[in-house]
Amino acid sequence: MKAVCLTSGGLDSATCLAIAKDEGRKIYSLSVLYGQRHAFEISAAKRVATYFGVERHLVLNIDMEKIGGSSLTDINQKIPTSPLFESHDARPSGSETLNIVPSTYVPARNLIFLSLAVAWAEATCAGEVFIGANAMDYSGYPDCRGEFIDSFEETARLGTKAGICHGKPIRIRSPLLYMSKAEIIQTGLRLGVDYSITSSCYQPDSAGLPCGRCHSCQIRLKGFKEAGFPDPLKYQE
Amino acid sequence: MKAVCLTSGGLDSATCLAIAKDEGRKIYSLSVLYGQRHAFEISAAKRVATYFGVERHLVLNIDMEKIGGSSLTDINQKIPTSPLFESHDARPSGSETLNIVPSTYVPARNLIFLSLAVAWAEATCAGEVFIGANAMDYSGYPDCRGEFIDSFEETARLGTKAGICHGKPIRIRSPLLYMSKAEIIQTGLRLGVDYSITSSCYQPDSAGLPCGRCHSCQIRLKGFKEAGFPDPLKYQE
Repeated sequence: MKAVCLTSGGLDSATCLAIAKDEGRKIYSLSVLYGQRHAFEISAAKRVATYFGVERHLVLNIDMEKIGGSSLTDINQKIPTSPLFESHDARPSGSETLNIVPSTYVPARNLIFLSLAVAWAEATCAGEVFIGANAMDYSGYPDCRGEFIDSFEETARLGTKAGICHGKPIRIRSPLLYMSKAEIIQTGLRLGVDYSITSSCYQPDSAGLPCGRCHSCQIRLKGFKEAGFPDPLKYQE
Repeated sequence: MKAVCLTSGGLDSATCLAIAKDEGRKIYSLSVLYGQRHAFEISAAKRVATYFGVERHLVLNIDMEKIGGSSLTDINQKIPTSPLFESHDARPSGSETLNIVPSTYVPARNLIFLSLAVAWAEATCAGEVFIGANAMDYSGYPDCRGEFIDSFEETARLGTKAGICHGKPIRIRSPLLYMSKAEIIQTGLRLGVDYSITSSCYQPDSAGLPCGRCHSCQIRLKGFKEAGFPDPLKYQE
């Protein structure tokens, strides 16, 4: 079966793609250049797609920086680098964390990306869309929760030809949803993911080296530590 | 209250914007260049936005022609011009028509557009998104039905900071949903819409003149006829 995999170039989406591949799916990987300051991740996404021998890799462009409302698309805002894990090892997961949404939240990003993925799934007759959303660990993003993913699947069924006319609704798969970052990494290593070709940092330098201080880097480093493996990436000095 | 209005430049979205304006909303109009062959409609959208004195008009770009699957974004496909209303005056509305989805259906288009509109609503603190979707008359588009719009509203609540964290879900308004085309035109005329600045045709000529033969033109012309007003547009010879 064909599957569209949202592929950002990060650790989670690379693992998600490996799971889809392991299930025997023919992969159509989709990346989005949406005006993110860390557009470097798109080159990582291409490496991941090549590494796993996808059927096709598509990069879509949207000028979402015109929408604003996020430090990831507005270079006048600062990327937060405050320590996440000083006083406790992990934030409570789920809705309790949602009173603090970080400035790196991009309005409706997963809603937009899933919609584009469903469109491509319809056009290519793929039966599934994979997304590496993760509700555990620290994230605080409302669009990485199971309730949202489930609701989206139903909305996509009601709004597409595939769902309503052909009786073949597109399934939304989020296999990482309730894994810890350490479990994600252990799963990926077991499935042969080469994490040295991924990119998680919100503000890499011009050579692509990650900062080690943004929240995405902190979560990644903590995940590798807890998984008992060294992160193969070289970080900025 | 602020409202984001999806504005294509067509008859429906112009009327929808007029309704939002009539309700006293501050309008943020949003158009999308998505690789449609009738990109001419974007100039009509700008005219409509100017005509109604919107707070801001935003044009987003997405290269959806890479996704394909529609005669509206694939110039190698022919736009259908078969007569719609020969044997009967109007197609049955609602789900009965959904076994025939025209080639002008663009995969997940309203899902994508509503998602972008919700993103901009979040970023601008708008409480509503208006869409001129219409389930009546001939359309056959699964993403123009009430079930889809209602489900989308709930999904957007679950996946956004506005909905989950601030307790202010964005309402999706589709005031034209169950109006006939004639009723839409009568409503718009009452609210002062100048339909001479709108554009409905899927294949206008280089001067922007509508063909009069594509399904969108046929539905428009029939609507004006039934409304008892002449269409102010000049058509191709």
